[in-house]
Amino acid sequence: MSAEPGEDRERIVAIARAARRAGHVLGRVSGPERRAVLLAMADALERPGAREAILRANAADLADAKLAVDAGELTAAAADRLPLDERKLGALVEGLRHLAGQPDPLGRVSVDRDLDDELNLRRVACPLGVIAVVFEARPDAVPQIVGLAMRSGNAVVLKGGKEAVRSNRALCDVLRTALVEQGFDPDAIALLEHRTDVDTLITLERDIDLVVARGSAAFVHHVQRHSRVPVLAHAEGVCHLVIDAAANPVMAARIAVDAKCSYPAACNAIETLLWLRGAQDVLDGVVTELRRAGVTLRACERTRALHPELVPARPQDFGHEFGALELAIRGVDDLAGALEHIERHGSRHTECIVTDDEDVAAEFLANVDAACVFHNASTRFADGYRFGLGAELGISTSKLGARGPVGAEGLVTYRWLLRGTGQVASDYAPGKRRFRHRNRT
Amino acid sequence: MSAEPGEDRERIVAIARAARRAGHVLGRVSGPERRAVLLAMADALERPGAREAILRANAADLADAKLAVDAGELTAAAADRLPLDERKLGALVEGLRHLAGQPDPLGRVSVDRDLDDELNLRRVACPLGVIAVVFEARPDAVPQIVGLAMRSGNAVVLKGGKEAVRSNRALCDVLRTALVEQGFDPDAIALLEHRTDVDTLITLERDIDLVVARGSAAFVHHVQRHSRVPVLAHAEGVCHLVIDAAANPVMAARIAVDAKCSYPAACNAIETLLWLRGAQDVLDGVVTELRRAGVTLRACERTRALHPELVPARPQDFGHEFGALELAIRGVDDLAGALEHIERHGSRHTECIVTDDEDVAAEFLANVDAACVFHNASTRFADGYRFGLGAELGISTSKLGARGPVGAEGLVTYRWLLRGTGQVASDYAPGKRRFRHRNRT
Repeated sequence: MSAEPGEDRERIVAIARAARRAGHVLGRVSGPERRAVLLAMADALERPGAREAILRANAADLADAKLAVDAGELTAAAADRLPLDERKLGALVEGLRHLAGQPDPLGRVSVDRDLDDELNLRRVACPLGVIAVVFEARPDAVPQIVGLAMRSGNAVVLKGGKEAVRSNRALCDVLRTALVEQGFDPDAIALLEHRTDVDTLITLERDIDLVVARGSAAFVHHVQRHSRVPVLAHAEGVCHLVIDAAANPVMAARIAVDAKCSYPAACNAIETLLWLRGAQDVLDGVVTELRRAGVTLRACERTRALHPELVPARPQDFGHEFGALELAIRGVDDLAGALEHIERHGSRHTECIVTDDEDVAAEFLANVDAACVFHNASTRFADGYRFGLGAELGISTSKLGARGPVGAEGLVTYRWLLRGTGQVASDYAPGKRRFRHRNRT
Repeated sequence: MSAEPGEDRERIVAIARAARRAGHVLGRVSGPERRAVLLAMADALERPGAREAILRANAADLADAKLAVDAGELTAAAADRLPLDERKLGALVEGLRHLAGQPDPLGRVSVDRDLDDELNLRRVACPLGVIAVVFEARPDAVPQIVGLAMRSGNAVVLKGGKEAVRSNRALCDVLRTALVEQGFDPDAIALLEHRTDVDTLITLERDIDLVVARGSAAFVHHVQRHSRVPVLAHAEGVCHLVIDAAANPVMAARIAVDAKCSYPAACNAIETLLWLRGAQDVLDGVVTELRRAGVTLRACERTRALHPELVPARPQDFGHEFGALELAIRGVDDLAGALEHIERHGSRHTECIVTDDEDVAAEFLANVDAACVFHNASTRFADGYRFGLGAELGISTSKLGARGPVGAEGLVTYRWLLRGTGQVASDYAPGKRRFRHRNRT
């Protein structure tokens, strides 16, 4: 039933180009006009007709998913991400309104410099253009992603998990209608539905400006390896919690339990606990609380010498994302040992130390190369909403472009605008005029 | 003579990891300490012994290059980029001192927000880590690249054109010695010399944080297509000059000649001139001056109706980077036509309009999607030094990360640092504590 590859490519190029044209208008209107789009989308999602259509589509997806789970073709965990209900829709509406109230990420001037008299250079934030977002079967992601794209003046090409195809379609219909009501072209929001479309999308370096890849680590790596378009990788989080000898034992246990157990499948949950020589007493309490919370602890020999009841760790447990109530534990000599372990095994996502020693904390914060580095706070705070970004497209473990939780501000680039009165470069040849390079701000 | 692929990989991984360790120290010391490194490098390049060694190595490269040109294995243009002399070395020394005086790109705090009482989030600029720079046979690039890397606290792995191998080695020796004198590990500057090393480098997504690709468009595209590491592409510049009916004729001709002729091989030189209906009189003067400057003009039919003396343009002339004294000319109906042409044929590098009509200028500046968009100023200003960045690693046509001329500030990323007093995410579950999200600045 699938089209020829060439036809697929033409179809997707046409979609991306229509999205660019439509998005271009969004990127040029004022901040209040883009804000109005988000508010109109929130209103549209609240209309009874829209809610019914969305929930009906979602019920159909759920029915199929139930059959797929029974047939062993879908995991129960994946099916759990599908359901929408009145409460979730309400949260999405609230999220769009919250995002509408956030500062406009466009138009900010980060450089304002007179190169010479009447020769002014400004660096101004602008949209990326067309963003492709490939995401897991989680329909509540649709209004969040679309909201962030519209807030930042970008067009968006969505490709969600196939289990949510009807829900995604219903949600996009409502959001596109709201765009039209505000006088914009609905093509700024496109929805792809074929799995093979992704492999085409990531070759369109001229028509797609950024690919946001969410989903399994294997899928994200596949996109990273094959994409000709820059990728914002929402990949695995192999996060560490480091327990120093000077850690407050109660705090250490609370943070360990929250960071592991409050949502074990999250990328900002911890996967390995490292304890420094001298932290044995703190460790005892941490181990007790984690076991009480039902966590399987896979411990190194040094740890098992103190806690022989724990499962022996296999070498591959370090650097592994369990995504479940399992945790590797390793004792290290000192902070340098912990830093070395993190450098080798971490995924540069979120790393945390618990200590009351300010010098140790400062050294940890200065030396860990990761998107998020925390002191005495759970790794689970690594989240766009918790960080105050209004919403989150994903948590980037890339270093170029946005890093860590990505909000609307992470979807902009800049342009250098130079306004002159006829100046040419030859005027500034050696021995002639000199640049002034005078910053206005 | 070449090693096994596996051996090559191990060797380059070892070099990159040594560079990371050495660079890590540079990235953590204070701004003044990094500034001192640049000044020490400038001093080292001024020592008679160092200058002699560099010029001797360069003379050997030049002798080989001459043979290669005679044998038809190297273009004269490529050989022209090789020579170093006292004057050029002096300019490099001055460049390093100038860069040392630029503001420190590290440590800047772009977010400072209390998520709650005693829970402070800061987003702080930090080095990327290890930067690989693959560049053409132009030895004066070595101190510029190394200077930018050191200024931004990054380690650098260099791979220059093979024709400059002895010059590059001599320059790196001097720069590495200056690092040692300042108490740093010289491994922060590594030099690769085999062409095949590049293909290995770009697969090391764990050990290299950014690849800067300079050179021919074909080479840069090869790197972009095959790299697993993010690429900062210094690729071709297909820049346009738009002549509006309301352009000042003298200004238009001066800008056209400067933008085409002051350095035709530069990426910021223009390749196509677009004139709007009504600009015929302005065009006449522009054509006269460009022909007087020796430019071959390849014109569309509409242009040739006015100037039958011009060569007919072939379709492939539009969007082509001549890099020589050739220019395509096309007449378009209006500004929308010019914008559409640029969108289709431009390389999103630098685009310019000449007009005295402020509304036309504003529309052009608002609507062109390119790294640099200029009004009444030559495209040749698109340059790190001219922009006041102190120096330039390249001009990026990528949108993610740095865009346009890239200075030291373009080689940094950021980390999110969260300092708490034991807070956990579960404290902020629905119905419990609420975030305050209070910006400190």
